[in-house]
Amino acid sequence: MNKSGVKVFAPATVSNVCCGFDILGFPIHGPGDEVIVFPTDKPGIHITKITGDKGKLPKEAMKNTASVAGMALLEHLDKTHLGFNMEIRKKMPFGSGMGSSAASAVAGVVAINHLLGKPLSKWELLPFASAGEQIASGGSIHLDNVAPCLLGGVIFNRNNDTFDVHRVYTISGLYATLVYPHIQVLTSEARNMLSSEVSLKQMTQQAANLGALIIGLGKGDLNLIKRSLKDVVIEPQRAGLIPGFYKAQKAAEDCGVLGCSISGSGPAIFALSNNSLIAENAAKAMQAVFTEQGIEADSYVSTINREGALVC
Amino acid sequence: MNKSGVKVFAPATVSNVCCGFDILGFPIHGPGDEVIVFPTDKPGIHITKITGDKGKLPKEAMKNTASVAGMALLEHLDKTHLGFNMEIRKKMPFGSGMGSSAASAVAGVVAINHLLGKPLSKWELLPFASAGEQIASGGSIHLDNVAPCLLGGVIFNRNNDTFDVHRVYTISGLYATLVYPHIQVLTSEARNMLSSEVSLKQMTQQAANLGALIIGLGKGDLNLIKRSLKDVVIEPQRAGLIPGFYKAQKAAEDCGVLGCSISGSGPAIFALSNNSLIAENAAKAMQAVFTEQGIEADSYVSTINREGALVC
Repeated sequence: MNKSGVKVFAPATVSNVCCGFDILGFPIHGPGDEVIVFPTDKPGIHITKITGDKGKLPKEAMKNTASVAGMALLEHLDKTHLGFNMEIRKKMPFGSGMGSSAASAVAGVVAINHLLGKPLSKWELLPFASAGEQIASGGSIHLDNVAPCLLGGVIFNRNNDTFDVHRVYTISGLYATLVYPHIQVLTSEARNMLSSEVSLKQMTQQAANLGALIIGLGKGDLNLIKRSLKDVVIEPQRAGLIPGFYKAQKAAEDCGVLGCSISGSGPAIFALSNNSLIAENAAKAMQAVFTEQGIEADSYVSTINREGALVC
Repeated sequence: MNKSGVKVFAPATVSNVCCGFDILGFPIHGPGDEVIVFPTDKPGIHITKITGDKGKLPKEAMKNTASVAGMALLEHLDKTHLGFNMEIRKKMPFGSGMGSSAASAVAGVVAINHLLGKPLSKWELLPFASAGEQIASGGSIHLDNVAPCLLGGVIFNRNNDTFDVHRVYTISGLYATLVYPHIQVLTSEARNMLSSEVSLKQMTQQAANLGALIIGLGKGDLNLIKRSLKDVVIEPQRAGLIPGFYKAQKAAEDCGVLGCSISGSGPAIFALSNNSLIAENAAKAMQAVFTEQGIEADSYVSTINREGALVC
């Protein structure tokens, strides 16, 4: 085992990309979490320090996403006799819809795997990162943040239970704008508020947009991407959780973005654009909508991150 | 205008491809309809002969899909002063779920366009072929047979109203099996029996399979294609219309097909395979299931037709 320490960066992610509810996600370049791990003689994973969480995250190894993910990997590799000290630097908001818990889980497991001499590939790490994120999401497995955070690129998640995820061939040059208004949206509430039924017509429209988006991303057909970046099912139900959502969306669209919707279960909003100028303008325009309402908002502009989590 | 006549072949098509309800279709190489058109001095389109329809199809120019499609094109091009005699040779069953009315409409419009010196491309002919098929489907536009029949290849239909259709990049070497049991399923009945609501879970599963199928067809990931060729929404509702459907499906799956479901709204059943031997075996196995029940059934095996309608 590598005796020196390692620092891993794991990026924020946009999931529930418009028509891709529970299916489609991608990471950006920043913000993201950092996890620093050093070997120690005491078996197990010990969280020595957490910064940037305002004291909200648990330090107990069996409750924190980063250490749970790492422990799952150690168990799989039959290496629980080894010891690690872990420092977690939360450098992104949590409860934001930007995949914060997924980022910590991914960073934790990538760091441990690196110190063990990389016995597993990134794709093979998915179940262990997911086991960590599961702790934060109340026991259910959702790969739509974990997989893009770990792997990079636009990631299509066919099935959570079988880790059936695939990278979607995507043209380069797409820019993401993320705006995070400082309001609270609980993931569980955002999930429970969804109607359990949708109309056949909505289903067909949503599927048509999802398929067309995949085709458009592959062919680089920007107009098709634009026509397809719609959510006729989830967004209308959740928009009310974010004050001024439609105004922000309209402001982004007026800047010329390809599409704009809720990131994850909110409150962050994302937009996709085909150049950085539009992406920057959309960031300012959306931020202004929240400022007008007296809501503070952070914004981030980045290309789609194609590498995912990285050893720094 | 070309003074000699033209013969056009337009193939049968599989639509509602599993998870691609109203969205995904492809043509096979045979059977299909033939339309023969000769210029004449009398303006308009005149159906001189229909064979293979057992006297069931209308000869009135404004009621027959082939002539309606042709007339729509003539009107668009401001050529209604020209005259054409049209012979229609139905060489495939109708009411079968194999896109019979679409084939006639497509053949009609391609023939007229050819005689006019091909002023429009195949893609540009889509609205006119669709106008013909509309007559047969009671006024609503459904492109999922017309578009693949005309264009060839696996065709993704994002939106009927805007003719927003796209060819899905598909590996070669896929074989289709079509089995048509001689029973009657009315398209209108098959459509009306569908529940207007689906669960959010079903919606997500169906969309996940559709997206994964597109990715799988593009990458040539046969296992992914196999996992994704499922229909969790429509097939369970319509299977009862076809006696022995699940037995036939199981028989095809036992032969090693990638997937098997209802073609269009039935009663034809299709399977996709990655070699001709499996496709042939599946044809025999499915036919045997119907024979056992005293139901006569025709079967066809073909690669996916990448050309669509052709001037012979």
